[in-house]
Amino acid sequence: MIALQQFIADVRRETDAALDRLIPTSQTEPTRLHSAIRWSVFAGGKRFRPAIVFASGLTFGANWNALATAAAAFEMVHTYSLVHDDLPAMDDDDLRRGKAACHIEFGEAAAILAGDCLQTLAFEAISSDSNLSAETRTRIVSILAAASGTPNGMVAGQQMDLDAEGRRPTIKEIESIHAQKTGALITAAAAAGAVIAGAHEADLAAVRKYAEKLGLLFQITDDILDVTETTATLGKTAGKDYAAEKATYPGYLGLEETRARAGAVAEEAREALSALERDTDLLLDLVGLIRSRIT
Amino acid sequence: MIALQQFIADVRRETDAALDRLIPTSQTEPTRLHSAIRWSVFAGGKRFRPAIVFASGLTFGANWNALATAAAAFEMVHTYSLVHDDLPAMDDDDLRRGKAACHIEFGEAAAILAGDCLQTLAFEAISSDSNLSAETRTRIVSILAAASGTPNGMVAGQQMDLDAEGRRPTIKEIESIHAQKTGALITAAAAAGAVIAGAHEADLAAVRKYAEKLGLLFQITDDILDVTETTATLGKTAGKDYAAEKATYPGYLGLEETRARAGAVAEEAREALSALERDTDLLLDLVGLIRSRIT
Repeated sequence: MIALQQFIADVRRETDAALDRLIPTSQTEPTRLHSAIRWSVFAGGKRFRPAIVFASGLTFGANWNALATAAAAFEMVHTYSLVHDDLPAMDDDDLRRGKAACHIEFGEAAAILAGDCLQTLAFEAISSDSNLSAETRTRIVSILAAASGTPNGMVAGQQMDLDAEGRRPTIKEIESIHAQKTGALITAAAAAGAVIAGAHEADLAAVRKYAEKLGLLFQITDDILDVTETTATLGKTAGKDYAAEKATYPGYLGLEETRARAGAVAEEAREALSALERDTDLLLDLVGLIRSRIT
Repeated sequence: MIALQQFIADVRRETDAALDRLIPTSQTEPTRLHSAIRWSVFAGGKRFRPAIVFASGLTFGANWNALATAAAAFEMVHTYSLVHDDLPAMDDDDLRRGKAACHIEFGEAAAILAGDCLQTLAFEAISSDSNLSAETRTRIVSILAAASGTPNGMVAGQQMDLDAEGRRPTIKEIESIHAQKTGALITAAAAAGAVIAGAHEADLAAVRKYAEKLGLLFQITDDILDVTETTATLGKTAGKDYAAEKATYPGYLGLEETRARAGAVAEEAREALSALERDTDLLLDLVGLIRSRIT
């Protein structure tokens, strides 16, 4: 796992450098907006989506430089969704990544605008990325937009999640909500890396399948951590999704069966990689990394 | 002005058809989200930004089909900004385009998500527009993103507008806020039409200059209408910007001098067109159309 730790450190450094380059400084007017954006982006996120962009891209032969802007763009879209999710009218959470949520620190108006702008900056970054051909930029914009919008993307999943609150959703509904709310962006991150590397359609399909399972595994482990960990450890309010009767796995299957489900899904992710005639160690290691959060 | 009326009617029909095609139906899950989006998009907006995309594109020789998706994308970004602007944490307005604001009808959470999604759909539409080459799609995404984001775009202008509330901004600050909050998107709409038509750089610069003045004129007339018209006529709460001591022209110059300023800016817009060796009647007519709102 030493190689994986080095990879994760490299991902963080490359992604943060790209984010710092792509986002106006805190001293740029309007300073409140840029401070709010930077507060949220540099709050110590795991850079999990960038890691998938890089891991997928490197697996198919892309180089780090070609992947950095796309990786940062996925992180910007993810961060915008967190900033808006934490708003009082949404999940109403004061704590994010161990710090005050954006709207607590900068007020609701600036938080709404910071989220709006982070989304814009993501698409601007990709469309202006001189490392990529116009064809590739266009494809990445399409992939990112479809995964973060509606009817099959992240925001649709967030609305379905809100709609499911207070009633007991079926396991099928839970999986569908997760697949859109978090899975779509994770799958798109894997696809984006592969597209930048010029991967063939069959390889693209296999890495998408892998990432769907990885995203599901990520969500299941998140749900388990929400129940088993403390707020201090998580850096966000613990037990909250469960208490709100939101669509969670432990709420439906119980904790033990959820753990078993995590193991099965991890195996499915590994199986999807067997279709690739590539060195898939990096992608396999990511499965292990997520599994290690709950074991 | 009969030709102009026909043009405006054609713009509305083409834009609305494109919007209807690009936005999932109200029956598509999650229905609340898509209903909220359609409520806001089909609330009877003037389709002013689409009109500029079409007028600029047609002036430089593009055909209607090639312009429709980009026109709809600009309207989606404009509508998302209105939906978020009306939120309680922002301008807190209950009325928009003569109907209940999105958050009044569908709740704050759905309104936040509807705005988020409209932005995403705009970029998705452009990146998937098979009428345009990959190079053109990439350029339009860049143009739209720069104009709607930060540090020189719409959201930056909205933050500056919020920052200026309750104090008396200078006329230079007012112009700067307007140039970003409304001017940037209008200028980008003109540039997008010209780029789709394959206009040369010099022509692009001239039509940008024209659109900057047109955007300023549009904002000045909006400010005048805010003071002189009733809520029923406007379809949004009248006198509100003035009462809130927001950055408005009449608040600084008084009504008569603001009217004179509108006349001078209209003349500057017309002058910018003299650099074009084209039939600029359509673009000239748009200046007259905006002038006619206050005369």
